[in-house]
Amino acid sequence: MLDTLIKNAVVIPMTQRNLVLRDCSVGIRDGKIAYIGSETPEANEVIDAAGRTVMPGLINAHAHTAMCVMRGYADDYSLRSWLFDKVFPVEARLDERAIVAGAVLGIAEMLRTGTISFSDMYFCQPAVAKAAERIGIKANLCNAVIALGDDYDFEKDRAVIETRKLLEEYGSTGPIRADVAIHAEYTSSPAVWKRVHEWAKDHGVITHIHLSETRAEHEEAKARRGMSAAAAFEANGVFDTPVLAAHGVWLDREDMDILASHGASVAHCPVSNMKLGSGMANVRAMTDAGVNVCLGTDGVCSNNSLDLFEEIKLSALLAKAEALDPTALPAYDALKMATVNGAAAQGRADETGRIALGLDADIIMLDTNAPHLRPSYDPIATAVYSAHGSDVCMTMVRGRILYRDGEWLTLDIEKALREVEEYAVPIVLGK
Amino acid sequence: MLDTLIKNAVVIPMTQRNLVLRDCSVGIRDGKIAYIGSETPEANEVIDAAGRTVMPGLINAHAHTAMCVMRGYADDYSLRSWLFDKVFPVEARLDERAIVAGAVLGIAEMLRTGTISFSDMYFCQPAVAKAAERIGIKANLCNAVIALGDDYDFEKDRAVIETRKLLEEYGSTGPIRADVAIHAEYTSSPAVWKRVHEWAKDHGVITHIHLSETRAEHEEAKARRGMSAAAAFEANGVFDTPVLAAHGVWLDREDMDILASHGASVAHCPVSNMKLGSGMANVRAMTDAGVNVCLGTDGVCSNNSLDLFEEIKLSALLAKAEALDPTALPAYDALKMATVNGAAAQGRADETGRIALGLDADIIMLDTNAPHLRPSYDPIATAVYSAHGSDVCMTMVRGRILYRDGEWLTLDIEKALREVEEYAVPIVLGK
Repeated sequence: MLDTLIKNAVVIPMTQRNLVLRDCSVGIRDGKIAYIGSETPEANEVIDAAGRTVMPGLINAHAHTAMCVMRGYADDYSLRSWLFDKVFPVEARLDERAIVAGAVLGIAEMLRTGTISFSDMYFCQPAVAKAAERIGIKANLCNAVIALGDDYDFEKDRAVIETRKLLEEYGSTGPIRADVAIHAEYTSSPAVWKRVHEWAKDHGVITHIHLSETRAEHEEAKARRGMSAAAAFEANGVFDTPVLAAHGVWLDREDMDILASHGASVAHCPVSNMKLGSGMANVRAMTDAGVNVCLGTDGVCSNNSLDLFEEIKLSALLAKAEALDPTALPAYDALKMATVNGAAAQGRADETGRIALGLDADIIMLDTNAPHLRPSYDPIATAVYSAHGSDVCMTMVRGRILYRDGEWLTLDIEKALREVEEYAVPIVLGK
Repeated sequence: MLDTLIKNAVVIPMTQRNLVLRDCSVGIRDGKIAYIGSETPEANEVIDAAGRTVMPGLINAHAHTAMCVMRGYADDYSLRSWLFDKVFPVEARLDERAIVAGAVLGIAEMLRTGTISFSDMYFCQPAVAKAAERIGIKANLCNAVIALGDDYDFEKDRAVIETRKLLEEYGSTGPIRADVAIHAEYTSSPAVWKRVHEWAKDHGVITHIHLSETRAEHEEAKARRGMSAAAAFEANGVFDTPVLAAHGVWLDREDMDILASHGASVAHCPVSNMKLGSGMANVRAMTDAGVNVCLGTDGVCSNNSLDLFEEIKLSALLAKAEALDPTALPAYDALKMATVNGAAAQGRADETGRIALGLDADIIMLDTNAPHLRPSYDPIATAVYSAHGSDVCMTMVRGRILYRDGEWLTLDIEKALREVEEYAVPIVLGK
């Protein structure tokens, strides 16, 4: 007996290029996908998906979710002013309660728009982990090491202490897990990178970094190290364990080869990169080089949303516009970045990112009855070029429905909004 | 006594840079904006806009709306294959009923996403005009002259006949009006351009054209004419009356000067230009040159939606990414392209595009209570960087509510969908 059966669905399993299954049932037992086929085996709960598209839940591979408390607080500023006059001073004021409030609101938005797992770099992650666990979304959480100043002490670094706590409480497997993180080349030194890498090796976890986001950062690394940031990280062993590198806007071809040869992933964040004036990453070159490219929203301060459907469509558009070739990055490949590739980047390739037997039932449903999604000649094109996150009508993680038809089933959205607007916003405003 | 009063609103009037009015009422009488202020004068109908943002309705300055029947039918093909293997053969099969069906579905999507007026280039426009008039949306409609072949006869051209009919029935003013149109430089000759221009002059209407959409088109014009398409049109008088030029992706600086000196408008269509691999227009250079830049979706075959909020956000992102400067094209300027500038491009500057006394009540409301739009520190940033068309909860044209909270009040959406899917789709598929 199945726990849940989703029947009459159009399914995009993401197991084979352009494969679409019609009049298909997906069965779930003990949180896993236990049936895919044209029959309708018995189940405790049956969901009729007629006129709906069922696909793997999306993976947001680079986020600073708690920044939701600052949505729209710092737009259209120069990067320096954005960081030093707006973001950093606010972050210095945010306490754990405000950060958890922002994270919960961000998680609500992610669930509402079809994201089932996110890789997050921010502060107070042990508390965020508890919130994510309570709500039921998956997450790879890290607090990035920033090792500036002569008196930097790895052992006393808040990021290190928090990550150790996460590793202790959640470990390197399971729905919530710890990553380790180096903030970026320009905010730390090789001695610290080696320590983080040793740590990653000892615990078998992913190292999350920011890499070559802006031209200035990329060029300054070369001037400082005599080599690119990617090459410097490689020379210090950072890539010897799995790395998830955010942005990669200014990577040289040689950098891409370094990442590819070590099996590293790049979290492409097109909206954020464009909005901050950082540039436009060359996804096709990275993919051609063999890099696993996935997608991220970055924080809402540079977006200003956590809707991966925007990143999916924009990544396809950007690749076509840059190549002056409408066949560049077809719809399937754009969707693959947000599912299969994201799962690989999170170390969850055998667990999620596809609708396949034995994988976790991390499933979303699009309401393709909506007039703006009709007619539909190709469900994959519809999902990529016409759908928005607002078309998601169900988000299920490990077989458990967390969002459905306007309702969040594991969080109190009104309370979450009050907590942000009544507690966190005054802190942001310095009141 | 007012007909309608919208009270407790946050209003973005678009009458002054970054102006936001809070706790504001907007009153409507006889289809016009008759009150703006903090009082709540009596009205027959009162709309409480607490937690909502009220702004001018959007103007889609370049569309082929009826192509909705082909949504998702031709994605990720090379431009040549897209046109000659997919779009043109289908268009040859579409009859008036199928075209009207596509137009009605497209109008429904535009109203749902906040568009109150559109400039449309397609076939069977007298029939589309009747549908648009019945539904209540504004439109500038044209059927473009394509004068290929030695036996071309202007007097017998279906586009000419249809436009004459439109001019006769709707004239050059009013909610529905006729434009004249030259399809493009490469599909006609100076002799024809002169005739269209004379016609535009005689009737006082706008000339809608496609201009320098692809690099090949732009370069071939130079080779063929010894000058750019813009220069060739200018030399033949086309710019002596108001012109709305779609795309302008490859315009040279001199071309921009030509357009600016004649007060011409460019309909920037970023999603379509990127999706077809045409490139990315330089909005900042056009704006700096003095060109009136507005926004269009183009047809859904190259988009695949008619949601102007996507074009607004993307135009801001593109300008920032190209300039490597996050201060390029701030939120207000992006919104201005879709409102004030669009109105000017349609010859409706004194009629719509702003919330101002005496203008038509062409007003939309965003449901800014939605969690993904909160918190909101700046309603303009929220509208541009966080909102989607799906956040529009009311669309009013000339004081009449056409869409509200999931309901289309002047069209039967189920019937419209049936007409597309049961009548038009089989024609698209050649069945």
